[in-house]
Amino acid sequence: MTHHIVLKVAYDGSSYFGWQATKEGPSIEESLSLVLERILGEKICLRAASRTDRGVHARGQVVDFFCTHLPKDLSKLEVSLNQLLPKDIRCLSLSEVTSPDFHPTLSAKSKLYRYHVTASKVQKPQYRYTHWHVLTPLNISLMREACLALAGTHDFRGFCNRREDLSENTVRTLYSVDISAHDDDEIIFNIHGQSFLYKMVRNIVGTLLYIGNKKLDCSAIELAFSSRKRAYAGVTAPAHGLTLWQVNYEENPWDVR
Amino acid sequence: MTHHIVLKVAYDGSSYFGWQATKEGPSIEESLSLVLERILGEKICLRAASRTDRGVHARGQVVDFFCTHLPKDLSKLEVSLNQLLPKDIRCLSLSEVTSPDFHPTLSAKSKLYRYHVTASKVQKPQYRYTHWHVLTPLNISLMREACLALAGTHDFRGFCNRREDLSENTVRTLYSVDISAHDDDEIIFNIHGQSFLYKMVRNIVGTLLYIGNKKLDCSAIELAFSSRKRAYAGVTAPAHGLTLWQVNYEENPWDVR
Repeated sequence: MTHHIVLKVAYDGSSYFGWQATKEGPSIEESLSLVLERILGEKICLRAASRTDRGVHARGQVVDFFCTHLPKDLSKLEVSLNQLLPKDIRCLSLSEVTSPDFHPTLSAKSKLYRYHVTASKVQKPQYRYTHWHVLTPLNISLMREACLALAGTHDFRGFCNRREDLSENTVRTLYSVDISAHDDDEIIFNIHGQSFLYKMVRNIVGTLLYIGNKKLDCSAIELAFSSRKRAYAGVTAPAHGLTLWQVNYEENPWDVR
Repeated sequence: MTHHIVLKVAYDGSSYFGWQATKEGPSIEESLSLVLERILGEKICLRAASRTDRGVHARGQVVDFFCTHLPKDLSKLEVSLNQLLPKDIRCLSLSEVTSPDFHPTLSAKSKLYRYHVTASKVQKPQYRYTHWHVLTPLNISLMREACLALAGTHDFRGFCNRREDLSENTVRTLYSVDISAHDDDEIIFNIHGQSFLYKMVRNIVGTLLYIGNKKLDCSAIELAFSSRKRAYAGVTAPAHGLTLWQVNYEENPWDVR
């Protein structure tokens, strides 16, 4: 009998070459599938909601796989998994999928990414692995104004690093882009959208920061939309500030406290 | 001419045996004074507002020293310092002390400590170096009630790990103890007081958690006060969840953005 299992996974991406297995170095996919194969004794192919890039973190990555052998008590599988996984990868939840058509990417209704920035003269060392540090002060009001221009359905080709086939649809919908400031020097960007193009979140954050430090005017966003040219948007924000925060589904495929 | 310099310092305490120089292993004090001596070319003796324990972090430690040689441009000293210091220690600010009697410990009006906890089935790896992880859910209302009992002037001997001389004054004043909950699994304790006994903050947090998971009743706090016995309070919370957040002075001895 084939079982269909879904996992919620969190990781500190600092030491990995991204989600996807690559010959260049360690990947989350490889680490996780090796441990699952060791426990279940069969070949495991993982599908993930988001193929996070090198250095990007996840707090709510959703992964599924099919297998024929399964321990009766799934909670024991979860415990074994966390005992064998490296400390920078944790399985937060594991359950059998009830909906027959569930696919972590295709069934996803929306994804929430969070990007962390510190803006100060010197970065506090606590933030060095998780926050992009900028020296110049940022104008939060200007960035909030730009967030309003980003939300909605637009052609985000100008915010995509890959040279897409011109015929490819690069129209995407962002449900919300918001900013919160904490403890004087920490700024958090929440970007919630239906789906995303390659490096779209990091290009959005880079553009917002260029607007916040006045290297770009707020109109740059409209220009990047209408021209569909990458050159009008800002820099690509570094990977280590980004976390895949949450993936939302029509029906929650698992149950996590 | 003697110069009197004050620094605001932040550090990730994970790799250190605490603030104070010790033969057991690396300390913040040793790392910082070695770099200062290398730059200034003279012996430097540091005084710190708080001698944080092994594994405890700081975001706003205040340190001062006296020296005879000083570069004209103090901002250059700050830059050199951060270039030579290990990445887990940063000087956030550096200036000459204007008040002749300033002493980082004795002049301190109050200190704010922050303690980070995660309460969930599995800890997200992002928190593993900075948050104490507990498996049992915590009742925030009960803990908030206990916070009210802790605030004010009391004999905190029951919350002190060192066997104090019986004649020593163990009466301390806490200005506020508050709790905030974030993102479902993160709980932050802010403990603001005039001064603290040895391991007092970690014993307060351990006691609050025992009240939150119902191992102790709220009345344990009054019992620990009246009995002055450590046995009535909860466990000592681990060091890695604690951060010296801020030290307050009557007059701010430096200027930090």
